[in-house]
Amino acid sequence: MADGDFDVLVLGAGSGGYACALRAAQLGLSVALVEKGKVGGTCLHVGCIPTKALLHAAEVADAARESEQFGVRATLEGIDMAGVNSYKDGVVSRLFKGLTGLVKGRGITVVEGTGRLTGPREVTVETAEGARVLTGRHVVLASGSYAKSLPGLEVDGERVITSEHALQLDRVPASVVVLGGGVIGCEFASVWKSFGAEVTIVEALPRLVAAEDEASSKVLERAFRKRKIAMRTGTPFQSVNVTDDGVAVTVEGGDVIEAELLLVAVGRGPVTEGLGYDEQGVAMDRGFVLTDERCRTNLENVWAVGDIVPGLQLAHRGFQQGIFVAEEIAGLAPQPIDEAGIPRVTYSHPEVASVGLDEAAARAAYGDDAVETVTYDLGGNGKSQILKTSGFVKLVRRTDGPVVGVHMVGDRVGELIGEAQLIYNWEAHADDVAPLVHAHPTQNEALGEAHLALAGKPLHAHA
Amino acid sequence: MADGDFDVLVLGAGSGGYACALRAAQLGLSVALVEKGKVGGTCLHVGCIPTKALLHAAEVADAARESEQFGVRATLEGIDMAGVNSYKDGVVSRLFKGLTGLVKGRGITVVEGTGRLTGPREVTVETAEGARVLTGRHVVLASGSYAKSLPGLEVDGERVITSEHALQLDRVPASVVVLGGGVIGCEFASVWKSFGAEVTIVEALPRLVAAEDEASSKVLERAFRKRKIAMRTGTPFQSVNVTDDGVAVTVEGGDVIEAELLLVAVGRGPVTEGLGYDEQGVAMDRGFVLTDERCRTNLENVWAVGDIVPGLQLAHRGFQQGIFVAEEIAGLAPQPIDEAGIPRVTYSHPEVASVGLDEAAARAAYGDDAVETVTYDLGGNGKSQILKTSGFVKLVRRTDGPVVGVHMVGDRVGELIGEAQLIYNWEAHADDVAPLVHAHPTQNEALGEAHLALAGKPLHAHA
Repeated sequence: MADGDFDVLVLGAGSGGYACALRAAQLGLSVALVEKGKVGGTCLHVGCIPTKALLHAAEVADAARESEQFGVRATLEGIDMAGVNSYKDGVVSRLFKGLTGLVKGRGITVVEGTGRLTGPREVTVETAEGARVLTGRHVVLASGSYAKSLPGLEVDGERVITSEHALQLDRVPASVVVLGGGVIGCEFASVWKSFGAEVTIVEALPRLVAAEDEASSKVLERAFRKRKIAMRTGTPFQSVNVTDDGVAVTVEGGDVIEAELLLVAVGRGPVTEGLGYDEQGVAMDRGFVLTDERCRTNLENVWAVGDIVPGLQLAHRGFQQGIFVAEEIAGLAPQPIDEAGIPRVTYSHPEVASVGLDEAAARAAYGDDAVETVTYDLGGNGKSQILKTSGFVKLVRRTDGPVVGVHMVGDRVGELIGEAQLIYNWEAHADDVAPLVHAHPTQNEALGEAHLALAGKPLHAHA
Repeated sequence: MADGDFDVLVLGAGSGGYACALRAAQLGLSVALVEKGKVGGTCLHVGCIPTKALLHAAEVADAARESEQFGVRATLEGIDMAGVNSYKDGVVSRLFKGLTGLVKGRGITVVEGTGRLTGPREVTVETAEGARVLTGRHVVLASGSYAKSLPGLEVDGERVITSEHALQLDRVPASVVVLGGGVIGCEFASVWKSFGAEVTIVEALPRLVAAEDEASSKVLERAFRKRKIAMRTGTPFQSVNVTDDGVAVTVEGGDVIEAELLLVAVGRGPVTEGLGYDEQGVAMDRGFVLTDERCRTNLENVWAVGDIVPGLQLAHRGFQQGIFVAEEIAGLAPQPIDEAGIPRVTYSHPEVASVGLDEAAARAAYGDDAVETVTYDLGGNGKSQILKTSGFVKLVRRTDGPVVGVHMVGDRVGELIGEAQLIYNWEAHADDVAPLVHAHPTQNEALGEAHLALAGKPLHAHA
């Protein structure tokens, strides 16, 4: 094999790309990983990891602020953003070091620079030392995503910012308008409120986290209202004026909301422009790369994984697609990934977590008469009472059939989704889960109680 | 049916007793619940729930104390024990109210007073209004447990106390000797250290939480050492002198440890004396009531559940036994409970959680060559890094067979045991779990990574 010729050539070292590279190398394939930024991509450097560090700092601030109700005498004096950033950057750099070590340890060739698809299975990389041409028996497109804006809405990085800028802020803004009530918008709204800012969420759709079950949106909105986060749902954005000391945001109907900053959190677009995908004839739709359920593009031996593929833009979906493609290339014929079986978590205070179908989707899929739900209120769950959090566990099942959806709201419920995804993915019936013992007093016990109720024998619930 | 004659007569309204009563009533049986104290028993009033409230107050105190490393400027001024107790009592009374409502709502007859077995299926209750004789088609013994002491070690409730007294303390002691390094001892040691006390654990066995996998003990001990909790393992207690301002505890070898208090946490004994069990011929061993795997005593239609039955003394075991007996009486022929499938959690900082067999037990059961383990270090888990906790997920499996044990140490890992118990109880193989997607970045992802490693394809781990 010539220098520059690999079994697998991965374009992009984000979650999907590096997982594919690691698994392919593990399976004995020669792998090159092309990346213009840092191995780890959005998730590690400007996504999941740093935002969750901010959210944990927010939890610490809330704990201090509300310490009195637990009998602890503590005073919250303020947020030291330099300290928060140094904590956040410390977590990122430690994980980055680990990941870099793994990539190196598995003998993966990392090529730093911007890669373009210049032939069906050829990538040309602009490196610091000039252009380098690589070829692969297989090419995996994994170029990731960027924070989108709206037409006519200019991000200046100062007053009008995206999540990437928000992660670099050296201060807590006095007030913020968050444009977009999806996962990213809700997480930043939650952090800033905990840090002491005035926050207003503007969302065109009628509810927050609109991709979740309607009941989850309702309970999240109630919790945010209690936290005095202002919300304007069903309210499209119209325009923004940058003023001397902030922004004036006009929404449909003419209302103007003033704040120090506008965070644009309207979703993430695929990074696919100018990378030669179009020129090489990769089938695309509005910038996304189209694949079949085996992650194959229309070109032979060209695959795509992660945020450039239509569907959930989540790091763990990217991991799994990357692993899938590596195993498929190695001839292991893995099972296709069930997109609905991928758990979804919004790590706000409170958290929202789900897997499978929401009630509306289940009714649409199976018919109104063939779907049942049970909702277990966390008011009956001892550990949730101890944490002073409220929310629920809602189960959706096919009548006399398996659980097809689990939806939860409450602090820390994101950790319960591990069990919930097993229940969904193993197509468990209520009777399979109900007789099993959950530890008392935990929050996961609420999952057990919900299944007891679904099996017609609620223990700690009124039936 | 005569007044005072019931289908099911339950003696004791702790976890096992009330769960049995609730389920039996649900199944249409007439039920009497005899209790001299309050419905809810040890767990709700002087066990699981109040200690977990203390542990959460401790977490809040730690968060404030260590806030700086997260960039949060907060000062911990101290612990207001009156406030802690009012928070704790608030949680207990709210849950008690819910439970009382449930019991009432299901039409269960609650008889307040001390009940004695006065015939094979007859219970005489000393109530405030005099003796009352009840009979049952079935009698369920569920009289619970009490905090034990050692021979010659007198608990005075002032200087030498048990966990029940510890839950009522109106101050944070300056220093404590905790006699016993099991679950209860470790939880109180953890709380008091977080509250600012000097803590020394004295344990006769060679390690803390000796019922857990040896690796779990080692990591818990390391974490406690880092927290400056002093430990004297492998050190039997010899005697205690109550002094003017505290206690002087002498351990084997002659060392004397002085402290303000001695907490005796050497386990819980069955409450069975003087209740007529012996007289009626119930087969017993050292105070425990013997049963078969269907919770039957040697007497026809007399059952026993909860802490009086040899085995794990855990509220959720009691729940499940109680439900089991109710269903058995109703003729539903439920599956016997697999004791090893009951999850165990020590809610200290860090937490210890497990289900199934530990490595030594698995090797003993299946042979040294037929057992494999994988340990995934939480150092590779993003969310654990964010929480600044360390620990591991250790899997034990039969070679080419199912996972037979899951062992974890780290803050908040108690919530991961919900998924772990499904894996154990459903006899999952590594390959059943490995292809499923865990949400990133969560701690439950570490369970997914451990199964990937066990399946021979570690993602974020050096292999």
